Amino acid sequence: MEKKKPLILISNDDGVISKGMSALIRFLRPLGDIVVMAPNSPRSGVGCAVSMNEPVNYQLIRKDVGLSVYRCSGTPVDCIKLAFYTVLDRQPDIIVGGINHGDNSSVNVHYSGTMGVVIEGAIRGIPSVAFSLCDHDPDADFDPAGPYIRDIVEKVLAKGLPALTCLNVNFPAVKELKGVRICEQAKGVWVNEWENFAHRGNSQYYWMAGEFQHIDTDNENSDRWALANGYVAITPTTVDVTDRQLMNELKTWF
Amino acid sequence: MEKKKPLILISNDDGVISKGMSALIRFLRPLGDIVVMAPNSPRSGVGCAVSMNEPVNYQLIRKDVGLSVYRCSGTPVDCIKLAFYTVLDRQPDIIVGGINHGDNSSVNVHYSGTMGVVIEGAIRGIPSVAFSLCDHDPDADFDPAGPYIRDIVEKVLAKGLPALTCLNVNFPAVKELKGVRICEQAKGVWVNEWENFAHRGNSQYYWMAGEFQHIDTDNENSDRWALANGYVAITPTTVDVTDRQLMNELKTWF
Repeated sequence: MEKKKPLILISNDDGVISKGMSALIRFLRPLGDIVVMAPNSPRSGVGCAVSMNEPVNYQLIRKDVGLSVYRCSGTPVDCIKLAFYTVLDRQPDIIVGGINHGDNSSVNVHYSGTMGVVIEGAIRGIPSVAFSLCDHDPDADFDPAGPYIRDIVEKVLAKGLPALTCLNVNFPAVKELKGVRICEQAKGVWVNEWENFAHRGNSQYYWMAGEFQHIDTDNENSDRWALANGYVAITPTTVDVTDRQLMNELKTWF
Repeated sequence: MEKKKPLILISNDDGVISKGMSALIRFLRPLGDIVVMAPNSPRSGVGCAVSMNEPVNYQLIRKDVGLSVYRCSGTPVDCIKLAFYTVLDRQPDIIVGGINHGDNSSVNVHYSGTMGVVIEGAIRGIPSVAFSLCDHDPDADFDPAGPYIRDIVEKVLAKGLPALTCLNVNFPAVKELKGVRICEQAKGVWVNEWENFAHRGNSQYYWMAGEFQHIDTDNENSDRWALANGYVAITPTTVDVTDRQLMNELKTWF
């Protein structure tokens, strides 16, 4: 009996119609059967949000040999949950998020809908990898990332990932990538986060803006350092967020 | 010169008008000056989502001695970010999320808007604590939690918390609490997550539902075990989600 091809479930937060999604499908098609369930509109910055106060739906928008593409009215995490409930006929071998238009290193991991996709995957026990390019341009050039993405997905398909972990992979926006670095999450914080403007004369509205302030700039193990120096940053990420060191300290409090 | 009272910044995800918010204000008013910036409508399950595709605004809805309450059109994380930019005249001494109507133990930490509040606080370097009661009822009884909440907030105000950590505190819905346990995040996953119904005859819509499936039921250190046995579960939580063990393994891959 012929061995089934790996099943690759894909989602993102920029929406099913985005250059990063098209690039990811193109890079991964040689590696297996692909099912895409992705938001029907941009959902950047929604993290692990789920739709609890409204119903969601989905439609098939493309069907080809080894490729099915669905758009969904929900969040990135909704997309993964709904794909399992509706369109998947077997467990996926890997869940892939991206390719995100924009940087998901450092604390952005918490705000990222692309990371939401793979955190949901890791919770479900499926090896999961998020890819992001540090370029918000809708017409960003994803081609330099292609060989790395194929290599990383092939390795994860072959070796798996430990329970409750996933990979956060970020690419600098450069033509010549210098190779891979295994990283830790850089320390940083967003500052100057809002721009405000008057509406109808007397009411103020606030648009999110902001600049990322990198704190541990000397840390050559951080994902921000890798990106600033032309490397692909792979940050292994846990969904067990217990701080075990603080557990011991807290036990002395009570 | 008189020492200023501690400044306590509060938000939640059930919305500024909720019994859990009123209870939290009541419990914490004796401990300091309180500023509330909370969503103007329920935002359960939005995790660390931020509003990137629409502007947000806020209004003062209550002003009293030592208490200002603002409602905001954004997410819980937006509320914290916007409070810093607009209404706070100094750094808060603590950020408190809740009291949530519903359980935020185990993997719910990733979906919880209440946890979004305190993850944002920890990223900003402010000691931050989330409180949740395992009872979704809008009229849930928060009173048994009161003395614990005051005690925990007093301790955190006195001792602080390490950088990039926050506390996820969950209360079982019982009249008699058995005391505090310092816990780790239980292993679990949501199953049977959707209910679907036909709309206009031929189009299917999906409402999120689901049951939590607790996996490591034997683990007496888990937050789910503590809650199931009548204890207050305090789970120290890190916002540095790097998996350092997996870093070493991955270095052998490339």
